[in-house]
Amino acid sequence: LTTKLPKVGTTIFTVMSQLAAEHQAVNLGQGFPDFDVPARLVDALGRAMREGKNQYAPMTGIPALRQAIAAKTERCYGYRPDADAEITVVSGASEAIFDAVQAVVRPGEEVIVLDPCYDSYEPAIDLAGGRAVHVPLDPRTFAVDWDRVRAAVTPNTRLLMINSPHNPSGAMFDADDIARLGELLADTGIWLLSDEVYEHIVFDGRRHESVLRYPQLRERAFVVSSFGKTYHCTGWKIGYCIAPAALSAELRKVHQYNSFCSFAPAQWAFAEMIEAEPEHYEGLGAFYQAKRDRFRDQLLTTALKPLPVPGGYFQLVDYSGVSDLDDAAFCRWLTVDKGVAAIPLSPFYESPPAGQRLARLCFAKNEATLDAAIERLLRL
Amino acid sequence: LTTKLPKVGTTIFTVMSQLAAEHQAVNLGQGFPDFDVPARLVDALGRAMREGKNQYAPMTGIPALRQAIAAKTERCYGYRPDADAEITVVSGASEAIFDAVQAVVRPGEEVIVLDPCYDSYEPAIDLAGGRAVHVPLDPRTFAVDWDRVRAAVTPNTRLLMINSPHNPSGAMFDADDIARLGELLADTGIWLLSDEVYEHIVFDGRRHESVLRYPQLRERAFVVSSFGKTYHCTGWKIGYCIAPAALSAELRKVHQYNSFCSFAPAQWAFAEMIEAEPEHYEGLGAFYQAKRDRFRDQLLTTALKPLPVPGGYFQLVDYSGVSDLDDAAFCRWLTVDKGVAAIPLSPFYESPPAGQRLARLCFAKNEATLDAAIERLLRL
Ligand SMILES: CSCCC(=O)C(=O)O
Ligand SMILES: CSCCC(=O)C(=O)O
Repeated sequence: LTTKLPKVGTTIFTVMSQLAAEHQAVNLGQGFPDFDVPARLVDALGRAMREGKNQYAPMTGIPALRQAIAAKTERCYGYRPDADAEITVVSGASEAIFDAVQAVVRPGEEVIVLDPCYDSYEPAIDLAGGRAVHVPLDPRTFAVDWDRVRAAVTPNTRLLMINSPHNPSGAMFDADDIARLGELLADTGIWLLSDEVYEHIVFDGRRHESVLRYPQLRERAFVVSSFGKTYHCTGWKIGYCIAPAALSAELRKVHQYNSFCSFAPAQWAFAEMIEAEPEHYEGLGAFYQAKRDRFRDQLLTTALKPLPVPGGYFQLVDYSGVSDLDDAAFCRWLTVDKGVAAIPLSPFYESPPAGQRLARLCFAKNEATLDAAIERLLRL
Repeated sequence: LTTKLPKVGTTIFTVMSQLAAEHQAVNLGQGFPDFDVPARLVDALGRAMREGKNQYAPMTGIPALRQAIAAKTERCYGYRPDADAEITVVSGASEAIFDAVQAVVRPGEEVIVLDPCYDSYEPAIDLAGGRAVHVPLDPRTFAVDWDRVRAAVTPNTRLLMINSPHNPSGAMFDADDIARLGELLADTGIWLLSDEVYEHIVFDGRRHESVLRYPQLRERAFVVSSFGKTYHCTGWKIGYCIAPAALSAELRKVHQYNSFCSFAPAQWAFAEMIEAEPEHYEGLGAFYQAKRDRFRDQLLTTALKPLPVPGGYFQLVDYSGVSDLDDAAFCRWLTVDKGVAAIPLSPFYESPPAGQRLARLCFAKNEATLDAAIERLLRL
């Protein structure tokens, strides 16, 4: 049995969560909240089950949920996708990314990814027989060097994958990035996959530059989002993809024979929640900004140097004042010897920048959890 | 945009469910129960949510569920798979099938499927760049002609896909099939994918010949099952795959970057349910046999001729006494004009047998639903 995915091991998130559990470390590694989902969601899901909404949902998602997503998208980005032809509910943003890549990438085609990037992008490309072409972001600001992206384009380029707010750095696209992106794609046949799962977790009054705001971009894009990040339920695995009808049709061909449909009762619950409490996602930036600010102030009292966090729920820290280990070794040591689990950045890269001394800490946690972590980090 | 899956349209199940809804037909098409999931499951799922089990489950499934599956497998088939290395919980049996095919089939390799077969098999193979080689079952008994299967094997054959109890026919493998299968695979490098989602729905004292009972078979097999069929919750989309460690490792590489993990609260609910009420799945055959017998007796009063149903929850009927339409046209007519939705067999075939006049009716329904259908079928 020779493997089709020789580069794939267990994800860094699983590895670090297991290590955290073994060593009773405070787990700021894998990105998930340790607080509750909104009560209304739990109640609505329970109600849906008791009302017998337990059989196959439509393959594309229940109409009520697709309508709610269409309305929410219009409120947020001034553009209303067609609920029937352009919105597909799938089993988490990962499935959306996986399906989109399988739908459009053929053997031998190239996909540009911007390193560091989420670890599922490249295996999805590999499985399609494509080739990931890695363009590094700035190792400190995580800004895109659009000239380098342009230089990576070939006649064989099929897809460009972007992610704002960015995991692991929290960097966000601004209007200039959007303009450069538009220029780059104009008159090419390159599709765009925009991973926007942290769309509502943005800080300091910044505006999330969703690809959906821009006609020239959205007409060629798969825009992926997730309820897991927005509603504190990463284990519910319901996400969605907004794409023009022709791209949605291709994505659906894959989804239809992959997971087919997603956990039905949760679809009813989200349809209700989105309509009934828009203040939930509207308030998410402020909710997380308070956590970010408090955690940052605490980190400033430790030997770790926090980097700016424009969006998302991850705080990068520079640990060069503490250790000269590479990031994988540092994160192991921090977990095992110091009792705080973190995620190294190197697994997000094809070639990690030499000498980069950064680790990622998730602050989607209760104050008590973050306080416990800080207490340990003060002893570095 | 040229499609990677030119043969794929909307599944027949979606098409017929939509047509049924439009025409207020009694829907005996798409296979799903119209009765409730066991109350304990709903309660356990609600409890898991309220206990905060809402974040990512481990990628392979929660340990309690994998242990419960291991114990149940041992009770049922006298073989206990290793819960850590050999059992993977995924988002429904469809995802398991999709992942297994992506994991082992490479461009240019052949996969033998036995027609009629479930409509997701071939697109999964196509997406992997493989080629489905179709071997027909007997058009009346749906028995496997093992000589024809052997004749279809080439040095390029990578995988054989089997399904017992069989959808759409309900046919089941017997000990002789297992012996022939074993001979066929001996000394080859062909993997086996055994779709056993109807494993507990078997009638008249028959024994389900799970591949897991046979060491020489299970050592090369992905065995796929689903809680949707066993617990009346097709919309929950939790299934699992049992395979030797090396095959499981490859399947997990795909699953990890596809849906990553499955709806977490349901995993806790199933772990509890399997342990607490083994009588549920032990009694499932009798539960459905009563429905089958009653429905069959009713059908015998109509112009449709029911075929024998050894297992599963589908009743094939011969409609040649009623109509000479092909099966697709007949099922449309039955839905639109007669108010009973059925599924034609031709979409399950590469080349449907000429003159086959069979339609599939799902009897996983309350008596009132089946009675309403019969009332309409009496008017054919
Ligand atoms: C699917 S586990 C990874 C969760 C996550 O998005 C992250 O930690 O980056
Ligand atoms: C995923 S819809 C198809 C359901 C089913 O298994 C069937 O009707 O055959």
